[in-house]
Amino acid sequence: MTTQKPLPSDLEIARQADLWPMAKVAQEAGIPEEDLIPYGRHVAKVDLDVLDKLKDRPQAKMIVVTAVTPTPLGEGKTTTSVGLAQGMAAIGENAMLTLRQPSMGPTFGVKGGAAGGGYSQIVPMETLNLHLTGDFHAITAAHNLLAAMIDAHLFHGNELNLDPQNISWRRVIDMNDRALRSVMVGLGPKEDGVPRQTGFDITAASEIMVIVSLCSGLRNLRERLGRIVVGFTYSGNPVTAKQIGAAGAMTAILKDAIQPNLMQTLEHTPALIHAGPFGNIATGNSSVLADLVGSRVSDYVITEAGFGADMGAERFFNVKCRVSGLTPSAAVLVVTVRALKTHSGRYRIVPGRPLPADMLKENPDDVLAGADNLRKHIEIVKSFGVTPVVAINVFHTDFDSEHAVIEKIAQEAGVRVAKSYHVVRGGAGAKELAQAVVDACGEDSTFTPTYEMNEPLITKIEKVARGVYGADGIELSAQAKKDLKRFEELGYGNLPVVIAKTHLSISSDPSLKGAPTGWTLPVREVRAAVGAGYVYAICGDMRTMPGLGKTPAAKNIDIDENGEIQGLF
Amino acid sequence: MTTQKPLPSDLEIARQADLWPMAKVAQEAGIPEEDLIPYGRHVAKVDLDVLDKLKDRPQAKMIVVTAVTPTPLGEGKTTTSVGLAQGMAAIGENAMLTLRQPSMGPTFGVKGGAAGGGYSQIVPMETLNLHLTGDFHAITAAHNLLAAMIDAHLFHGNELNLDPQNISWRRVIDMNDRALRSVMVGLGPKEDGVPRQTGFDITAASEIMVIVSLCSGLRNLRERLGRIVVGFTYSGNPVTAKQIGAAGAMTAILKDAIQPNLMQTLEHTPALIHAGPFGNIATGNSSVLADLVGSRVSDYVITEAGFGADMGAERFFNVKCRVSGLTPSAAVLVVTVRALKTHSGRYRIVPGRPLPADMLKENPDDVLAGADNLRKHIEIVKSFGVTPVVAINVFHTDFDSEHAVIEKIAQEAGVRVAKSYHVVRGGAGAKELAQAVVDACGEDSTFTPTYEMNEPLITKIEKVARGVYGADGIELSAQAKKDLKRFEELGYGNLPVVIAKTHLSISSDPSLKGAPTGWTLPVREVRAAVGAGYVYAICGDMRTMPGLGKTPAAKNIDIDENGEIQGLF
Repeated sequence: MTTQKPLPSDLEIARQADLWPMAKVAQEAGIPEEDLIPYGRHVAKVDLDVLDKLKDRPQAKMIVVTAVTPTPLGEGKTTTSVGLAQGMAAIGENAMLTLRQPSMGPTFGVKGGAAGGGYSQIVPMETLNLHLTGDFHAITAAHNLLAAMIDAHLFHGNELNLDPQNISWRRVIDMNDRALRSVMVGLGPKEDGVPRQTGFDITAASEIMVIVSLCSGLRNLRERLGRIVVGFTYSGNPVTAKQIGAAGAMTAILKDAIQPNLMQTLEHTPALIHAGPFGNIATGNSSVLADLVGSRVSDYVITEAGFGADMGAERFFNVKCRVSGLTPSAAVLVVTVRALKTHSGRYRIVPGRPLPADMLKENPDDVLAGADNLRKHIEIVKSFGVTPVVAINVFHTDFDSEHAVIEKIAQEAGVRVAKSYHVVRGGAGAKELAQAVVDACGEDSTFTPTYEMNEPLITKIEKVARGVYGADGIELSAQAKKDLKRFEELGYGNLPVVIAKTHLSISSDPSLKGAPTGWTLPVREVRAAVGAGYVYAICGDMRTMPGLGKTPAAKNIDIDENGEIQGLF
Repeated sequence: MTTQKPLPSDLEIARQADLWPMAKVAQEAGIPEEDLIPYGRHVAKVDLDVLDKLKDRPQAKMIVVTAVTPTPLGEGKTTTSVGLAQGMAAIGENAMLTLRQPSMGPTFGVKGGAAGGGYSQIVPMETLNLHLTGDFHAITAAHNLLAAMIDAHLFHGNELNLDPQNISWRRVIDMNDRALRSVMVGLGPKEDGVPRQTGFDITAASEIMVIVSLCSGLRNLRERLGRIVVGFTYSGNPVTAKQIGAAGAMTAILKDAIQPNLMQTLEHTPALIHAGPFGNIATGNSSVLADLVGSRVSDYVITEAGFGADMGAERFFNVKCRVSGLTPSAAVLVVTVRALKTHSGRYRIVPGRPLPADMLKENPDDVLAGADNLRKHIEIVKSFGVTPVVAINVFHTDFDSEHAVIEKIAQEAGVRVAKSYHVVRGGAGAKELAQAVVDACGEDSTFTPTYEMNEPLITKIEKVARGVYGADGIELSAQAKKDLKRFEELGYGNLPVVIAKTHLSISSDPSLKGAPTGWTLPVREVRAAVGAGYVYAICGDMRTMPGLGKTPAAKNIDIDENGEIQGLF
């Protein structure tokens, strides 16, 4: 689309979008017409039959978009992913973008919606941010059916001897609702159930969200759901969703939800929006099935992984790529001037408040002072045998001298670097980046995960801590030791690991900026998501249910006189 | 479709269905192509623009399908509605069916799905029973956003002085989950909210469900949502959703949910499936907007109202028709041999157990002994100035002598009667019924609601009790008197009333069969659904959250080897 100066608001740009019919988006994307299932006017599900149908087509190159350690505001990773996909088209390449679906809770909390920004957006953003095709609702329903069946089981005599005080399966809701973090259910007369304390997490934190993101098809979905461990018997044996008798009905509920959702960018680049697991306790990546579909219809699949390279990209490599079998060719490291200035330790960014005024002044020294963070993330990507490309997400408040510092650091590390102007110019502003990515994909690479699957859980955690984060080692609490021992005994030892730590530092301490050294990763406890297929080590306070602020974004969301939704930006 | 003998299972019949593409269904139904919004392969939403576009077209005749007082098994009202719609097409008439969307909770509880039966079904039944287009999920989300904003308001200082012990707005979930009937939220540390006791209802019991079913468009939706009273201040003043600041965001969430969903019967008759308010505390009718769309594109709109004529049809006439402005022409009274035998008082039907063996023997005397119930329902329909048509829903266990009794009662009352074989023969088996309905619609009728809107609430309740139910009068508890007085003072006196009573008797005592006389309606308390726009009188124990049994239907629901959902019948 024709770009304007000064930059209109995201909403104004989105409203000017000339959307293609989904049939045309699909056709251009190489998705057979009969495999397109429309859901509303501007989104469609893709039938998984396409995978088998196109299985002889060469697989696409796989590119993950990650970032340096972000500030609390984020560094524009989604926007860069959209811009890069548009840029690929602008240089004549055929690319599919795969992204997570935004959670509705934060949309009504602080964020007010997320779909990229400026001239790099997914449209229509209202559809993306509200319901989409109902996958999150289906996940909520499947999750809560299992919960209801567990409580019904307790009520009807508890044949499985489930210990009511050792039930780990909570309920979920796609809402920021702090009052539901800790609740007592089953109050009132006897016929209203067995009283016990439990709580609600946000849907993005549901194990089923991860299952949907990692499953390879309907049969595999059924198996993973059946393996979910909901709690333990009085004698300590795990009780599964299969034993509760819920796995079949949950699969029926999720039958359509495992089909990826096709949308388009402002420039009609195809995008598969699918699943949205939490980035702290879960994998923080969109679905394997979307990547697989993309890899069959396109030459390049561009996917975004949550938070910095230590978080989402690490799990992309160590967990998701092993499940999908797709080999990553390149990793785009998004970096901003403000992020590196923050890593200098000289500034503090607080969400909801303006940036510190000094931070907006020309100051290449501050950028250099925070450069260790970028160097470390380059090193992290390289440790997987994947080629990094540094993408400078240009802000209008940046100075050339500051960009020059970033370019120099990348060049010193022997890494391609490109400035990207996708926010103000769309795909045309990301051509240089797109070309750098294509060139990087042309290089030989040897993808090497951090650990082997047959290594003990403790070794896996330690290898990630040392080999990825650069910690001196790990320190297990007594509880964590007990958990790991039990999980090995229960046969979960062959699962990959997810480290649940802050995303605001490469270390487990959010106040440590740059590339912290001389620290040890403290593991407080370890949990197993057996259905999703990973074990996660808790290294900090992990919130799984946000709350609403005093003036939540919801208060500004409404319909205007034309019936259009306003306030989502 | 070609019918087979013996009757195959509902599932077998549904799987043999030759479904039309939605574009063809819409075209035959008279819905302009550009107003059809596909959602998946076999359902589509209808753009409300169609109302304005076709506003000069003559309005359809409106037919409500109701029943005698049902047994706990139901008397096949949905099946008869589907069969009648198919029968109308079979005699060359142009009809639109409007039905409620089934609630997912009971699908996993006892019912295992509902979409008609035999050769009178809505297809695909999996889509109908699971998610459909996500309207119920949207209603759940809008409801719970308001709840979260209320608790956030308490947490952030409670500027509105909302009394935490006088908050009537609970949360909802589309699940049978007894453990959530009564819960304590906000437990744990201070940052996890303000502790208070509340609970969850099933989504069908949400006031927002009624709002979606009664609203006339997006603007009206916004107004109704804003008027919702969530609780009262310490000094007793109502606090609304508008004051909480939630109405705009709730409207955005529900923007698509107010568009009716188009599906088809086994014989491609168009059906609008939309909204599903509870039949006990709410209106128990599908949406006004679906009726309005149907009335603009068809010659006949056939709609089903929940439970017997004393319940769903009374509210259809006194509440829904006043909102829609549509004048009903005829009411189909579904009657079964087993229902009238039950009204003899000689048998007791228990759900989940086989019918009493004696009940299946030829016994026209038992039918006659229960006939007062049918006579009373005919009288109820006539009291509204609407022409009744008695539809005998034929079961293969019936005897001609038993049907003859029903026919004689109808004839004595001067009412058309037809036997309907839609279950075993589809539309062809309902031609006689369809013709009787067309003939009835040709008669002059003078629609007369039971009360005027400007009468006091107490008068409205009394007029329904005496004039519809045949009670000797009403008896108000002290609480009910207080409630009514307060509601009149608050300006709710101009709202219509819904009587929340058992559906298993015309009286408020479920054990009284036939046409009870010499009884008084006890009103325990009165509540106001100000957003939905009615006041409801509680006359018995009204359960708003079902529970799961020891072996819920969910345990039998699964996917088969072809990935098809099984166990929904």
